[in-house]
Formats: sequence, structure tokens, C-alpha cells
Amino acid sequence: MCGIVAYLGHREACPIILKGLHRLEYRGYDSAGVALLNGNLNVYKKKGKVADLEGFLSDKDTHATVGMGHTRWATHGEPNDVNAHPHFSTSERIAIIHNGIIENYAALKTHLVQQGHVFHSDTDTEVFVNLIEEIQTQNECTLEEAVRLALHEVVGAYAIVVLSKDAPDQLIAARKGSPLVIGIGEGEFFVASDATPIIEYTNEVVYVNDHELAVIRGGQLAIRSREDVVQTPYIQRLELELDSIEKGGYEHFMLKEIFEQPRSILDSMRGRLELDGGHLNMAGFRAYEQKFVNAHRIIIVACGTSWHAGLVAEYLIEDLARIPVEVEYASEFRYRNPVISERDIVIAISQSGETADTLAALELAKSKGATIFGICNVVGSSIARATDAGAYTHAGPEIGVASTKAFTAQVTVLVLLAMSIGQRRGTLSETKVRELMAELHSIPAKVEKALKLDAEIQVIAETFKDVPNFLYLGRGYNFPVALEGALKLKEISYIHAEGYPAAEMKHGPIALIDENMPVVVIATRDSSYEKVVSNIQEVKARKGRIIAVVTEGDTTIPAMAEFVIEVPPTSEVLTPLVSVIPLQLLSYHIAVLRGCNVDQPRNLAKSVTVE
Amino acid sequence: MCGIVAYLGHREACPIILKGLHRLEYRGYDSAGVALLNGNLNVYKKKGKVADLEGFLSDKDTHATVGMGHTRWATHGEPNDVNAHPHFSTSERIAIIHNGIIENYAALKTHLVQQGHVFHSDTDTEVFVNLIEEIQTQNECTLEEAVRLALHEVVGAYAIVVLSKDAPDQLIAARKGSPLVIGIGEGEFFVASDATPIIEYTNEVVYVNDHELAVIRGGQLAIRSREDVVQTPYIQRLELELDSIEKGGYEHFMLKEIFEQPRSILDSMRGRLELDGGHLNMAGFRAYEQKFVNAHRIIIVACGTSWHAGLVAEYLIEDLARIPVEVEYASEFRYRNPVISERDIVIAISQSGETADTLAALELAKSKGATIFGICNVVGSSIARATDAGAYTHAGPEIGVASTKAFTAQVTVLVLLAMSIGQRRGTLSETKVRELMAELHSIPAKVEKALKLDAEIQVIAETFKDVPNFLYLGRGYNFPVALEGALKLKEISYIHAEGYPAAEMKHGPIALIDENMPVVVIATRDSSYEKVVSNIQEVKARKGRIIAVVTEGDTTIPAMAEFVIEVPPTSEVLTPLVSVIPLQLLSYHIAVLRGCNVDQPRNLAKSVTVE
Repeated sequence: MCGIVAYLGHREACPIILKGLHRLEYRGYDSAGVALLNGNLNVYKKKGKVADLEGFLSDKDTHATVGMGHTRWATHGEPNDVNAHPHFSTSERIAIIHNGIIENYAALKTHLVQQGHVFHSDTDTEVFVNLIEEIQTQNECTLEEAVRLALHEVVGAYAIVVLSKDAPDQLIAARKGSPLVIGIGEGEFFVASDATPIIEYTNEVVYVNDHELAVIRGGQLAIRSREDVVQTPYIQRLELELDSIEKGGYEHFMLKEIFEQPRSILDSMRGRLELDGGHLNMAGFRAYEQKFVNAHRIIIVACGTSWHAGLVAEYLIEDLARIPVEVEYASEFRYRNPVISERDIVIAISQSGETADTLAALELAKSKGATIFGICNVVGSSIARATDAGAYTHAGPEIGVASTKAFTAQVTVLVLLAMSIGQRRGTLSETKVRELMAELHSIPAKVEKALKLDAEIQVIAETFKDVPNFLYLGRGYNFPVALEGALKLKEISYIHAEGYPAAEMKHGPIALIDENMPVVVIATRDSSYEKVVSNIQEVKARKGRIIAVVTEGDTTIPAMAEFVIEVPPTSEVLTPLVSVIPLQLLSYHIAVLRGCNVDQPRNLAKSVTVE
Repeated sequence: MCGIVAYLGHREACPIILKGLHRLEYRGYDSAGVALLNGNLNVYKKKGKVADLEGFLSDKDTHATVGMGHTRWATHGEPNDVNAHPHFSTSERIAIIHNGIIENYAALKTHLVQQGHVFHSDTDTEVFVNLIEEIQTQNECTLEEAVRLALHEVVGAYAIVVLSKDAPDQLIAARKGSPLVIGIGEGEFFVASDATPIIEYTNEVVYVNDHELAVIRGGQLAIRSREDVVQTPYIQRLELELDSIEKGGYEHFMLKEIFEQPRSILDSMRGRLELDGGHLNMAGFRAYEQKFVNAHRIIIVACGTSWHAGLVAEYLIEDLARIPVEVEYASEFRYRNPVISERDIVIAISQSGETADTLAALELAKSKGATIFGICNVVGSSIARATDAGAYTHAGPEIGVASTKAFTAQVTVLVLLAMSIGQRRGTLSETKVRELMAELHSIPAKVEKALKLDAEIQVIAETFKDVPNFLYLGRGYNFPVALEGALKLKEISYIHAEGYPAAEMKHGPIALIDENMPVVVIATRDSSYEKVVSNIQEVKARKGRIIAVVTEGDTTIPAMAEFVIEVPPTSEVLTPLVSVIPLQLLSYHIAVLRGCNVDQPRNLAKSVTVE
């Protein structure tokens, strides 16, 4: 996690860095700091958000045209002033900012302490910068050479920027496993974890690759491999719009993003659905058409909310295309020597396209010869670049840490993919394809209607805002929705919510149910409706408090439930796109009523670029 | 759920029935009742346990030689006197006891109300008995004929016993989907949900099959199909020992069963492990050897704790035998039109062998041509009888509702199965086979050692007994163990505990962590040890309270954790058999300290024979 910004040029560096850190706060916000190079190398850092750092800087001399800043999400050592970045080396001549984890830091630290280095923090990062200093002293080499040699010593993931008092016009950056992009302006350079801090200054960028070292010096950018071979930087033009990353009048990014869903779902199907001809038009699918048709198995790797979208896809693809699907936690998949063959397709789902575990799972599958397909939201992200084919979700930038519109966009793309495979394999009749296309086309309007439940849901949120626990139940397509609803509540309200397949409840979780336990049951009219009604009876018999999401016009469940939320009817396979909406709103309102920081929940970060 | 006992013979029926109900209380214990036929048809029933019913009966006339009794686990209508079984028909001439769920009860009830039937309870069962009466009135037929016709009208699962005032020497029973066994004595008959109420009177039993109707009349047992075709009863001899179902000096069945594990694990491998010759000897595997060797895919269906054993098996089989494995919630699998081929093997895991969803999933897979393999603990259970091959776990009867020794027995059998397949497929070298066999053989002694942690764990239980929430984290083979540890705590202490793959925590659940949250981390020395240490750091950085299960001699984690539990080292693939032990003990002691009814936790029942 963590966000990195650096600047070298002719303007004042500090305001550019601070503005950039605000943009990157979605990556972490437990502490922040800057290093400024102006003859001296000054480091200022503070526990808290970027705004706290700004306050702290107000009476400091921040004049400099070279500098770097960091907003942190703790991995080693708790969030406080000392553990915040940048970190100095023992001599205070070198400073570093770092995003990632150094796994062998303990062994390195023992060695460095023996060499006389002094440590002030609990971080792995301080080990990194002292290692660089030690190497430079021992080898009497340049800083660039010392950094390059240090990269051979550290095990783990990193994106780093290094400044030295002895090199006032130089900025060194490197990456392995954590994202890093360099913006190229007129006689000035920007370095950041993503393009948002850069976009208002230049749209020419270079994505640094793993094991590359970038050196900016004398108005030039030079990129070398870890083996010191010169690389040719590949300059790309960005097409990101800046106001798409602002709040647009909503109180929180999350609420804005929930309400954007009719549009983001539409954007995710735009151009891919030709209603007139009955054609599905997915470029990423067409590239791999034969492989999909002949696949023995599809394995989906993902984490968190994207993993829930993957579970929906398991139902979709098995139903519509009749290919066995396995959904895996990326972190488990990559470490368990999975059985993968060349006839398997591995689909990686990640909003950011930077999720470290998902990316690593993908690389593992690739090395075993599987076909790789990526579904992500951020154009040019690591996963997008690691896959040969894939599909973007086109949800637009998602800033709220709790994912909402990215989930529905992922499901939309997965519906299109499942339909495309089914149509091509002949498991889905043309009539059914046209029917589903028409129904999918009507989803944005149905989501719009579901969003009108907002006021109703606020009342439910008022009722339950102080409870310590929640259960969420669903069956079939609504089982992943139950998991996702529970995750949303957990993430932003810190209420312990848990999702379950409704029928599994009897095998344990039902013991938790008493008159204090709210149970959200997703019970839309579908093939498992009768079974879910039986499950509601079982909860009711133990006095659980039922909040049911039902299809408009349901007459059975209102007699059993304390609260009923009616959503528009749709085809069973598309249900998650509609039934998840009230659950997003419920978690949002409960969190707001509890006074939680909805967009930046404690302990979390937007994209998890460490393992 | 629910337990059924009935008697027809020459002795006093009531004491036999009450004793039998005590034996069946593991099947449900929210209310109980009896019906006694002695010229009159008297029904006595009471909310609460069987002991409450006994108190209530003390001043009643219970003289009768024909009768039936029921101990309930509510599915429709909350537990109270009125909803307890037996239920009368409107005329009070017919009484019924029922285990199962009638899904179309609402429609049937509407019709019966129109015909003048009066209902006192909220149950589906009362609908069933009035349906029988209505049919008998309309058709002017015998009770037997009316029951038979009624079975054609009801949709759902049932085991029923019916008595009528008009037939003082007759007892009718029928089943579909819920277990039912008839004991045949000298001029007397016993009917029950399992053999435990019968065993001290006779060891000759007949298992009633689905869609069969049993009529005991004039000293004879006759079995007919629902289509009225006479069936020949197949009489079996039981070999169950009665004192294996008693507590044996322990305070609770659960504690007894936890401490039985060195023996039950040994029993589960006994005769299957020939250390000298390096042979694995699994009869069930040999029957299907070629099918296992050539399988495209293995699908495991299960619920609850058995599902966790299935997750362990996914790691085992993929690791040792290199066949792709998919683990499914039985309840989800059966309703989602899964992709299954004749080259797939479906393994069903169930302690009782009666789990309704698992049984139905198995039948579905069978109908699609898959090879079916059962792993269960109860000999002669429905799943054992529905499968062509399989392996019993030999854990002995498990009475505690929270499963412990059944889980480790299941894992033991799954280890043997994975090794057998791997050996036969050549994915596991003979050296490795012998190494694992020797290590498996040493597991009972290691479990014995882990059980010595009991006093230590009581101290931890004291510290955390009042917390409202718990998280459990593990990776790889210890991920299912984390789920199982959390489930145990949930089931018997009603603390909201949740298990997660350790790396998934960052994608949401970490938001729950603050200084009040205990986090149990299973961090034994295995291939993911370093990663788990990183995850512990992340929890610690948010001030979570860490309870770590580590390998003996670990020197890193004690510096980070509030409590450390040391278990003996073993091979990574066998880890769950050892690491789960302290988690079972922890949940047990916390539940006892909270004053919970460990053996009969609220809302739960031992085997879930309804959907």
C-alpha cells in the first residue's frame, strides 16, 4: 500500500508533492511525510492524514525544487511519527520513501547494527536506506550504484525513491512488485504510485517495470535494469480526466460511486452489446475465442470484493457456458502448488489491477502455461499489462476504499463474458442470448430504481446502527451478494458482519441468532425462493430480526420480516447487479450514523499492493 | 432434525419412549412430547428438554403398550408447547410425529381450512395430519390408505409415525429424506430416527427406504412402496456398543470426544496403513482405483465442519495426487445445475451420513453419471447406503453437537485417500509415501501431546471469555483449520468468530481490528510461515490481541503474541490434525466459562436432516 510522489524541476516541489499525496490518500493514510532537498536534506513527517502534515509544515522552511513525499499504510511498526516515511540513513545524508515489504529485513538489520548503523523506527524501510548507505561506504561507489547493488540484497516488494544530500540535482527510483510511474514535463519530472498526482502537469508518462532503476539527473531520465543494462523508456500518453476523480457534490466518494452505478454499468457494456444484431462484441474474448471454447476449466483468482464478483462468475459461467469454474483466493492459490494445465484459463479480477497477490497468482498460472485473462478497472495497470487479453470494466476511478461501482462493473463484464462463451459454445440458444441482452440493457434503469430506496434504507440504518453483529444470507446468485453486503458493513462501520449461504446457517452460525441479531436475507424471486423462505422461518423461530431484500410485489415475506426492501425483478443470472444496491446503501448509512470515516476506513487502503 | 421413537408390544411404552428420546436429544431439544394409545389417544407435550417432559408426565396416566415420542428442533414456528409434537388432527382421532419439512404446507393449509379443519400451531406437521384425516374422510378408506395417498400430496422431507384412536393395535411409519429404522423384538417393535433407542432391546433392524410405508399390525411388520407394492424387509444385525454412547467420566460429551482423538484417529487409520510393506490398504479406494486414477476432477460436497475437512482435502489431493479439486457447499451445489461429467468423482463427507443437503447433492451427481464416494461416520446411514464405495471414519458415535473427533477422523481418511491416489498415479514417490505413512502413524502421539495444553488453554479462555468477537487466521493447510476453529467458538459460545485466509484480512476484515479484538493466528512452521509472520505484524500494528498457535521451539512469534500455544511439529500436509486440537479446547473452555450448554448449544442439532 502507501502512496509515493516525487518532483524534480524548476517549480516549488512541496505544494506539488502535497497535492499529489492528497490524491494518493486512497492508498493509505495513517501517516505522511516529505523530504526536501535544497542544499540541506530536510525531512518532515507526522502521524495522521496528509492534512495533519500540511498543518505541521506551515511554519517550516519548505523551499526546494527537488523533493519527495509519502502517505503510509502500515505494514511493519504501528502508525506514528517515527515510523512515518521518509526515513534517513544513519548519517542522515540519504533519505528514502518506500511502498512494499522487505521480507528479509530482520537478518539485514542484525548485520547493519553490527556495522554501527543506528535505527530509530520499527520499519523495514529504515533497514533499506541503511543498507544503501553501508554499500556505498564499503564500495566507495556512486549512490546509483549503491542502490542498484542494494536491490540485489533485499527480498520482497518495493517501489522506492531515494534522495541524497550529496547529489542535489538527482532523484533515483526503482520498483519490484509495487507500482511506479514517471511523468515527463518540460524540464521537470514527476514520480508517483499512479498517474493522478501527475495528470494536471503532463500526460506523457513512463511506467517503470519490475527490476528497473530510474535515474533523473541533469534534466534527463535514464532507466537501467538491475543488471545495469540500459533500457529504452516507453513513453505513453494518458487520457484520464481530472474531474472524474473529484467528489461531484456528494458527501463521500463512496456515495457518489454508489449513485454512479447506472452509468458505470452502462459504460461497462457500452459497445459490447449490439441489441439489433444480437451480437456480443468483446474484443478481449474474441482474441481468445477458441481457447475459451475448448477450455477444460476456468480458474478465477481475486481478493476481497473482486473475489465475490468471481463467485458470481462461477454461477454465470457454469450456468450459461457449461465449463467448470473454480474460484480461488489469490493469496492461497499462489502458495499451494495448484494443478493447472495448458487447457485451463485463469481469469484475474482486480479493480486497481495492482493487487499484489492477484498479480502473483497470475504470473504463476502463466508460468504453468495457462491462458491468462485480466479483468480490471485501471487502464495500464500491472495486471492489464501482464495479461495478453482481458476486458476493462470502465467503471471510472474508484476512490472510496469500499468498492461499490467496481463490483457491479465486474459483474457486468463477467455476464458479457459468460454469454459470449455460451453463445460460441452453443450452450446458450440465440433466443436466450437476445433475451438476456435485452434484460442486461434494462439493468441501469433498474439500478436507478433501486437507488430510490435510499430514504427507506436510512430508516433501517437508524434502527440497527448500534448493533455489534450482523448476518447476511443468500442462496445461488445471491450467496456472493450476501458475502459482499457483509464485507461492505465490516469495512466501513466496523460492525462484525458475516455472510453465509443461507442453508449453511444450520450447520453452525444459527447458534449466534437471538432477539438481538439482525439477519439480512436476500430473497428475490428466483429458483431458490421457496428454500430461502424456509430459512427465514428458521431464523424467525429463534427470534432473529429479519431485513429482507425481495422482489417488488412479494406478498409472503412481508408477513415474516421486520423490514422489507423491494427491488425490481430481473433475470435470475442478473440479480446480483440489482440486489447488491440496497446492501451498499445500508452499509453506507450505518457507517455515517456511527460517525465513521466512510471513504477512508481505519486500517484499510484502496489497493493492496503488498502481499 | 428432530428425534422420533415409537413402540408397539407387550411392555409399558412410555418409559421406553422417554429413554429413547434422551438418546436422541442430540437431534434436537427445544421441545418434546409423547402420544399414548390405550383406548384413548392421549398427547402430552412440553417446551424444553426431555427432562422437562418427564416432570410434566409424573402425575399423568401414562399406562399404554403402544405409543410414540418426539424431541424437536424447530423449523416452522418457534419452540413452545403448542408447536411441539405429537400433533392431533382436528377430530383428535389421529396423531402424528414428524421429522422434516413440508414445503407446500401453506397451499395445503389454505385448502384444509376451507374444508373446515382447525389449526392450533404454526407447524407444517399439523397440516400433514389434517391432510391424512381429510383424505380418510373423503375416501372413506383405511388409515393406511389415507397415509399412503397423503404422501403423494406433500412436497418435502419427512419421517413420520402415525397413531389412530380407531386402530388401537396399529402403528404406521413412512419416510422420504429423513432417517427411520425399525427394531424387531420378540412380539414387539421399535421405531426410531437411529438405532440408539433400540439397541438395548434388540439388534435386529430394518432401515426404511425413501418412499416406503411401514405398517405394524397384528404382530407383523409389512412394508409397501408409495405405489402400494409389497416390499421385502431386509433385516440387518447391529453391532453398536451401548457404553460407547455414554459420557465416560467427562463433564461433557464434547470434552470426552476431544480427548478421544488419539484413539479415534488411530481407529480411522487402523488396518489401512501397513508400515512394513509401505502399503496403503483402503478397500473403498481399491474398488474405484481406476476411476480415481483417471478422474478429470474431484468434487467434494459437504456442509459445516465436514466442508472444512473437504477444504483440507482440496489441498491434500491437489498436492499429493495432482487432480483438480473443487469443494462445494452441498446446499449450493444441488441447486445450481453444476457441470459434472462421467469422468468426475464426487466425494460426499458427512459425520451422520444423514445430512439432507449432502445426500441430495450426491443423488444429483449420481444422476449425472459421476462416480460417487462417501465418507461418513455412521455405519448404515443414508449416505453410506446411497454410495457404491466409500470409507467410514470409525470415530465412534459423536454425541456433542459441535463436531471434533469426526473432523480429525475425516481428515485422517482423506489423507489416506489422497496418498492412495497419489501412489497409484505415480505423483507421490515411494519414499514420500513411506515418509508420510510413518509421520501419520506418529500423529496420535502428537495429538496426545497437544491435549496436554489443556491447562494452558484454560488460562487463555479465562482472559477472553467475555469478548464479543474473534478472528481466526491461517494460510494453506491451516486456512480450513482457522475456519473450523471459528465455527467451534460460534457454535458453543455464541461469540461471533470468523475465519479468514490470513492474506485476505487486508481486503476488509482488518477494519474490525482494534485493541479489543482477539485474533487467533495459526502459524506453524510450514511453507507460508514467513507470510503469516507478516500478517501478524499487520494485526499488531493495529493493536489486535494475538493468540498464536506455533510449532514447538518457535522463537520469533513469542515476541509478537500475547499468548503462544506450542504444538508438536509434523509434516505440513498433516498439520491440521494437530493444529486444530488447541482450537477445539479453546472453544470448549470459553463456552464452559460463559455457562453455555456445550453439548446442546442453542438453536443447533447434531445432524441436519432438513434442507
